Amino acid sequence: MKKLINRPEDVVRQSLEGMAAAHGDILKVHFEPNFVYRADAPVRNKVAIISGGGSGHEPMHGGFVGKGMLDAACPGEIFTSPTPDQMLEATRMVHGGSGVLNIVKNYAGDVMNFEMAAELALSEGLRVANVMIDDDVAVKDSLHTQGRRGVGTTILAEKICGAAADKGYDLKRLADLCRRVGTRGRSMGVALTSCTVPSRGVPTFDLGNSEMEIGIGIHGEPGRERRPLASADAIAETLVLSIVEDAAYERTVRDWDETKGSWVDVEIVSEPFMAGEPVLAFVNGMGGTPSSELYIVYRKVAEICEKKSLRIVRSLVGSYATSLEMQGCSVTLLKMDEETVNLWDAPVRTAALRWGV
Amino acid sequence: MKKLINRPEDVVRQSLEGMAAAHGDILKVHFEPNFVYRADAPVRNKVAIISGGGSGHEPMHGGFVGKGMLDAACPGEIFTSPTPDQMLEATRMVHGGSGVLNIVKNYAGDVMNFEMAAELALSEGLRVANVMIDDDVAVKDSLHTQGRRGVGTTILAEKICGAAADKGYDLKRLADLCRRVGTRGRSMGVALTSCTVPSRGVPTFDLGNSEMEIGIGIHGEPGRERRPLASADAIAETLVLSIVEDAAYERTVRDWDETKGSWVDVEIVSEPFMAGEPVLAFVNGMGGTPSSELYIVYRKVAEICEKKSLRIVRSLVGSYATSLEMQGCSVTLLKMDEETVNLWDAPVRTAALRWGV
Repeated sequence: MKKLINRPEDVVRQSLEGMAAAHGDILKVHFEPNFVYRADAPVRNKVAIISGGGSGHEPMHGGFVGKGMLDAACPGEIFTSPTPDQMLEATRMVHGGSGVLNIVKNYAGDVMNFEMAAELALSEGLRVANVMIDDDVAVKDSLHTQGRRGVGTTILAEKICGAAADKGYDLKRLADLCRRVGTRGRSMGVALTSCTVPSRGVPTFDLGNSEMEIGIGIHGEPGRERRPLASADAIAETLVLSIVEDAAYERTVRDWDETKGSWVDVEIVSEPFMAGEPVLAFVNGMGGTPSSELYIVYRKVAEICEKKSLRIVRSLVGSYATSLEMQGCSVTLLKMDEETVNLWDAPVRTAALRWGV
Repeated sequence: MKKLINRPEDVVRQSLEGMAAAHGDILKVHFEPNFVYRADAPVRNKVAIISGGGSGHEPMHGGFVGKGMLDAACPGEIFTSPTPDQMLEATRMVHGGSGVLNIVKNYAGDVMNFEMAAELALSEGLRVANVMIDDDVAVKDSLHTQGRRGVGTTILAEKICGAAADKGYDLKRLADLCRRVGTRGRSMGVALTSCTVPSRGVPTFDLGNSEMEIGIGIHGEPGRERRPLASADAIAETLVLSIVEDAAYERTVRDWDETKGSWVDVEIVSEPFMAGEPVLAFVNGMGGTPSSELYIVYRKVAEICEKKSLRIVRSLVGSYATSLEMQGCSVTLLKMDEETVNLWDAPVRTAALRWGV
């Protein structure tokens, strides 16, 4: 195992310490329980947005804490869900009197713990809404998940909702927006290599010298199939076509009903992409892939979108939702409209995404 | 060889095509000869800044083209110097009537070709100044270089000089500033793994499972020594102490003398770091290292700087000067002052570095 680390058990803490040291103008880190939060928290009269998940996916989510995006991020141990006490303590720290939106990637542990944290916060009189992102078209049900996994669209939802919170959206409107983004984004990834969790010291899975895993999960969960390594163009085509040709996806999710004071089931549906629609195209690196390769993939993604009459109106290329040092990438397409384009363009100042400020 | 590419011979071109597709609001790409240039070039009455070098180090330099940084970047083939015709054509495209500053990393081919390009431009009546960056303290003389290699400080010089050009510095003042940044920055790197040049298909060098190369060059040139893999803290200490304890470094460089119309030798010196000085600390990933590990390194860099009474007033953490998918990092410390801090903070809008706009 070759890593720039000290003891495996110190990876999460020391990485957070480094972030705090490097970005004191943007964020602070609370230890025990661990969470990253805006240096100027709480922001009064703004809905606070919290996300979180296992570590090992950096910069997601701590790198997205700051003006115009997240108020707090709760990192678990590597590839392990954060615990309700982290989320509750973060909620207490950043809520500014207008409620808290939790953006939750669909992994069983994350969903369960964010629900528990929401219940605890609600019992303290804090208004909370949880919205789950489940955008990975690769597989239905997986190692750690019922239904589709939550991947790249999560970051886009965090940026768009962060801007909307800045503009004064109330909790209900913000949660609706987040759900809309979640149902309009689809993703799929590929791994060329495994990653190695520091505490285990050996690769999470074995992949032959000329093999790749199509539809990989961000913790190395099995994807759709293992295939001979293909060209960047062929890989991009597989990912984009899987996304673009994905049918309407209906499922039931749980929402907190304030009037009833209980969780209720809600039917939601992700509509397929339609010719002529404006989209944001996001090519994401898995951590060990150089940006030059991501641009080679992006080139083909743009070409296929053009063929499919999808208009790319915004783009993002970089390693944002990673799996430690895994080589590979994921593609996310998100249907856009005037509102979400304006929110995407709004100023953001975080460690990993920054413009306009 | 596992890479997200098509044919090895198409890597540079297709990566540039992807950049052009993703960042049309920031940059354009000219093919044959290849160079990346600002979408709004030429900018009238501003000194234009050009850099360049072998490909494989992305985002350096094409990712730094845009408002507040470079006007153009000339990418060679992978790990191969760009040619004078690329630089000359870029010069013709971006010069805005106030001259051109070429920022050149110290590699024999880059220096020779940028000198030849400068002579050709001068013969066309364009004012040009070349400033060489040679900040790598690891070794004196190396595989492709006489004197010290040019690494991380180059990016800092590009940002600071880009802002100064925006503020109206004339060519002489800008070249002096660039040289000053060059002599105030020092860097050193480490590799945990080799990288693989696509056209070769095999790793550039062999490194045992528990070995690392201290003082590696960005093309895989041998460093100071090969050692057993150490902890992130021990590595950070080696790199920072090598930088901080480096003695005054004197050398002769070549400058174009406008009045004489010829190249002249100039003696320059990099002064050692002194306790109490303000510095910018830059932890750079080599391409295959996740950001969480860079923050673990940054944490220790900050700790050692504090012990050495160096005040970190600005920081940069990310993979900016890479060696394809190499795992490893480099550390750069740059002495700062009020002028360079203000220029660092000025707005920049490029594919890889962006804030304030």
